[in-house]
Amino acid sequence: MADEVTSWWQTEIIDIHPNIIRIRGYAIEDLIGNVGFVDQIWLMLRGERPSRVQARLLEAALVAAVDHGPQAPSIATARMAMTCGVGLNNAVASGVNLLGSIHGGAGEQALEFYEGIRAAMASGVSIDSAVAEAVDARLAVKRPIEGFGHRFHRKVDPRTPRLLKLLDEARAQGAIGGDYCAIGRTVEKRLLAVKRRPLPMNIDGITACLYGELGFPPPLARGLFILSRSVGILAHAWEQSRQGGRIKGPLPPSSPYAYTGHGPRKLTGPREEA
Amino acid sequence: MADEVTSWWQTEIIDIHPNIIRIRGYAIEDLIGNVGFVDQIWLMLRGERPSRVQARLLEAALVAAVDHGPQAPSIATARMAMTCGVGLNNAVASGVNLLGSIHGGAGEQALEFYEGIRAAMASGVSIDSAVAEAVDARLAVKRPIEGFGHRFHRKVDPRTPRLLKLLDEARAQGAIGGDYCAIGRTVEKRLLAVKRRPLPMNIDGITACLYGELGFPPPLARGLFILSRSVGILAHAWEQSRQGGRIKGPLPPSSPYAYTGHGPRKLTGPREEA
Amino acid sequence: MADEVTSWWQTEIIDIHPNIIRIRGYAIEDLIGNVGFVDQIWLMLRGERPSRVQARLLEAALVAAVDHGPQAPSIATARMAMTCGVGLNNAVASGVNLLGSIHGGAGEQALEFYEGIRAAMASGVSIDSAVAEAVDARLAVKRPIEGFGHRFHRKVDPRTPRLLKLLDEARAQGAIGGDYCAIGRTVEKRLLAVKRRPLPMNIDGITACLYGELGFPPPLARGLFILSRSVGILAHAWEQSRQGGRIKGPLPPSSPYAYTGHGPRKLTGPREEA
Amino acid sequence: MADEVTSWWQTEIIDIHPNIIRIRGYAIEDLIGNVGFVDQIWLMLRGERPSRVQARLLEAALVAAVDHGPQAPSIATARMAMTCGVGLNNAVASGVNLLGSIHGGAGEQALEFYEGIRAAMASGVSIDSAVAEAVDARLAVKRPIEGFGHRFHRKVDPRTPRLLKLLDEARAQGAIGGDYCAIGRTVEKRLLAVKRRPLPMNIDGITACLYGELGFPPPLARGLFILSRSVGILAHAWEQSRQGGRIKGPLPPSSPYAYTGHGPRKLTGPREEA
Repeated sequence: MADEVTSWWQTEIIDIHPNIIRIRGYAIEDLIGNVGFVDQIWLMLRGERPSRVQARLLEAALVAAVDHGPQAPSIATARMAMTCGVGLNNAVASGVNLLGSIHGGAGEQALEFYEGIRAAMASGVSIDSAVAEAVDARLAVKRPIEGFGHRFHRKVDPRTPRLLKLLDEARAQGAIGGDYCAIGRTVEKRLLAVKRRPLPMNIDGITACLYGELGFPPPLARGLFILSRSVGILAHAWEQSRQGGRIKGPLPPSSPYAYTGHGPRKLTGPREEA
Repeated sequence: MADEVTSWWQTEIIDIHPNIIRIRGYAIEDLIGNVGFVDQIWLMLRGERPSRVQARLLEAALVAAVDHGPQAPSIATARMAMTCGVGLNNAVASGVNLLGSIHGGAGEQALEFYEGIRAAMASGVSIDSAVAEAVDARLAVKRPIEGFGHRFHRKVDPRTPRLLKLLDEARAQGAIGGDYCAIGRTVEKRLLAVKRRPLPMNIDGITACLYGELGFPPPLARGLFILSRSVGILAHAWEQSRQGGRIKGPLPPSSPYAYTGHGPRKLTGPREEA
Repeated sequence: MADEVTSWWQTEIIDIHPNIIRIRGYAIEDLIGNVGFVDQIWLMLRGERPSRVQARLLEAALVAAVDHGPQAPSIATARMAMTCGVGLNNAVASGVNLLGSIHGGAGEQALEFYEGIRAAMASGVSIDSAVAEAVDARLAVKRPIEGFGHRFHRKVDPRTPRLLKLLDEARAQGAIGGDYCAIGRTVEKRLLAVKRRPLPMNIDGITACLYGELGFPPPLARGLFILSRSVGILAHAWEQSRQGGRIKGPLPPSSPYAYTGHGPRKLTGPREEA
Repeated sequence: MADEVTSWWQTEIIDIHPNIIRIRGYAIEDLIGNVGFVDQIWLMLRGERPSRVQARLLEAALVAAVDHGPQAPSIATARMAMTCGVGLNNAVASGVNLLGSIHGGAGEQALEFYEGIRAAMASGVSIDSAVAEAVDARLAVKRPIEGFGHRFHRKVDPRTPRLLKLLDEARAQGAIGGDYCAIGRTVEKRLLAVKRRPLPMNIDGITACLYGELGFPPPLARGLFILSRSVGILAHAWEQSRQGGRIKGPLPPSSPYAYTGHGPRKLTGPREEA
């Protein structure tokens, strides 16, 4: 019984004994002050420490995605939450809870898309053919390709060229393979050729390249985005709490919402029999 | 500008003016004391009041699903939450948050499955053929059919026969059509014939019949389950808060968990270069 | 060990064995179709079934509080969530998570306030003196009294007179004691006398009376409000999902927000040394 | 109208225009690759970049608190959530939601406690007297002092001496003032003297010193802990999803829970009249 109970929860991440904490085998007191926060994130998720270049690239992605303003549902929710009488952790959780497949999952979906193309390449198809086939199949079912185009930054997502440059530098050093960056660029070109208007790679498309180069599986593209955006959610929640406000809704009280339903009516008699 | 702002949020559910609240056109003071809570739920979701038989059936489903014990992750989470220093609403929200596609979505998926069979019937296929085809196709890909079989109640889910009886009575009165009940029963028979062991209809399978008969779309099968199970989540959170406890984890402290990862190791030098 | 493990979670609410589910001692198949949803809520929270009058009053409170429009943070959050690619349960949880001490806890705080006055009365102080002392003490520290006044319904909260009438009828029948209603009314009068403008009892003040009369402790005033408002949160989330929208923020895209921070600046050199 | 709407949400954190993103005045492309993730966290929360020593200390605190094992309610909840069919963001949110005043707020409360002592010192009281008074007042009401003692690490919390050493080094360099560290140490001594058994400073007590030295207000002690622990919550949720499992509850199925409520009983007749 004891064994069944003990082994009901199993982990390779952390080992704890009285007065001892080991993470992935390392004593916590060895890690503190000796490894960076980004290295610790990598160690927790991957089991080993990153190289210097790997940490530098992951750091750049985490820096890039912290915030995109209070008009985003996740940030707006956290700000509203702080005016409702909940804890800072509840406000952050409410915001993170909204980073679903659409709001937080575009990087994950972009990486899945890249993986499909890369698998085709591994079976001998050229990158151009593999990309063309994948892009065209997606457009044929009128489904957008996550990671390309931005409804607000139409010309360029300012985070993309900078991250791409860091990736190119890493590749020049032989630190990463470069497949995902090549795929991302080729997708961008194919989209331009087919749609006849630019749909430039956005933050989700470029971080999917970066996470792919670093060997992260697609779900962790969303996972790492969550860690990064949590910083913005926390900062906005905190700012809102200092601004004050009670039960602050989405719109100013003077223009609440449009009612488009049934006009006034009377409740007549008991409900009808079926 | 004002119009664009005002109409950014649109609803047919509720209309509010100073000193006036109307729900689906009815003044709130007419509803209070004159309609039941179940009727109010129906009115909110559907726009009109239910008939007496419809309300009675919905009520039975809501009564049936309130709780299935603290070993369920949703209930366990809410109980743990109450020992962590959060509000009762945060504890309930944490529990509801876990009613995902697997833990809370089986009824929704069962109803989707029934809808597919019903669509085949509508195009002229007999119920036996439509069910056989749907069931066999699912088993061929080794995917279980949600709503049938229960890992704990292997012989009978005690909620099923009772709900089925209420549905049969309603059908005898001509209050419901009976298609979904017939489909559910036929699925049960087909599973027995193919698997050679009973996989009796469980709470998700039977409430999917009931919600289907009442005209609810599949996502609201999950939605209504959430309303019902929220009662259990609240009751357990409240019970836990009266029992006390601080930072209560899943297992007793004497048997926390199994560590299966890397043995102790030293942090040697700076991280390697890539 | 087994005993310690088994008893790590304890409940008086539900007892489950293979093919058997008992709630507060009652077989689930006896409850289904025989007790109402409101009775089931009471049974889950209190351990015994309510009388007919008790159930009728609780039902009225649950009907009254289902919704107050999409300008409320809880509803807005649930609607936004549905455009972010999360499940219906996650949208409902995000909304419920915002029903904190300010947005969802006013009824709880009103009931606590009444309980303090009632305790003074139990020690022999007259209701007028007890109320005057409690109200004046609160106003002296410039803290508002939850449950009185409404920033939108300034003249009358339309839910209050109707609920008060139901409570008066129940009292005329001898079904409730009437202390909390008397306290609520006296607080209203005192506020008018001291502030020289009406601060009429609102939904939180009147449901606090109702829950007090029914013997619910203050935290369950918030708990029951959560159950009621969950209906509105679900209805709005569902309505939003049918309206569509992707990553819908609080304000229309044309008027996102005001930036009031630091003007553009350059990142110069490495960070300064401390 | 437009102005009222636009200014309904205000922020000093981020300024966005088409193709431009500025954080605290800095172009995002200047930050990416040039500032560390920890610097970015500081910039988001404080408005300016940290010095090298400040970033190094903050980094140490963030590294220290990432995880304390799956027996913690927050981690257990996230792991359970992944077996319920929700997104990775929902699992992380459910875990973060449990970091309430007890499970996640001890650092915040410790810092508040230190601030009170520091205020007394600022008015001329000696550190020994200020600490003695504060500690004794707390013990007199039998309320524990957050940040001291650990129910598992009874001799030493292995994170404390290491963080204290880093703080001492920073103080030796003149990079921090040292008040909070002195207060923390004095509290530890006073507790030993009064309780006659060691209650050594734990992770919450020492990070409260660190955050205090860095000028963070108490609520951000909880906020920064959330960012750190989110890493552990994510890592465990991800590990669980690779382990598989469906609807995994807190205890193994063989030992679910103890039922301590009413024995079996019959539902007799309609409910009694009040």
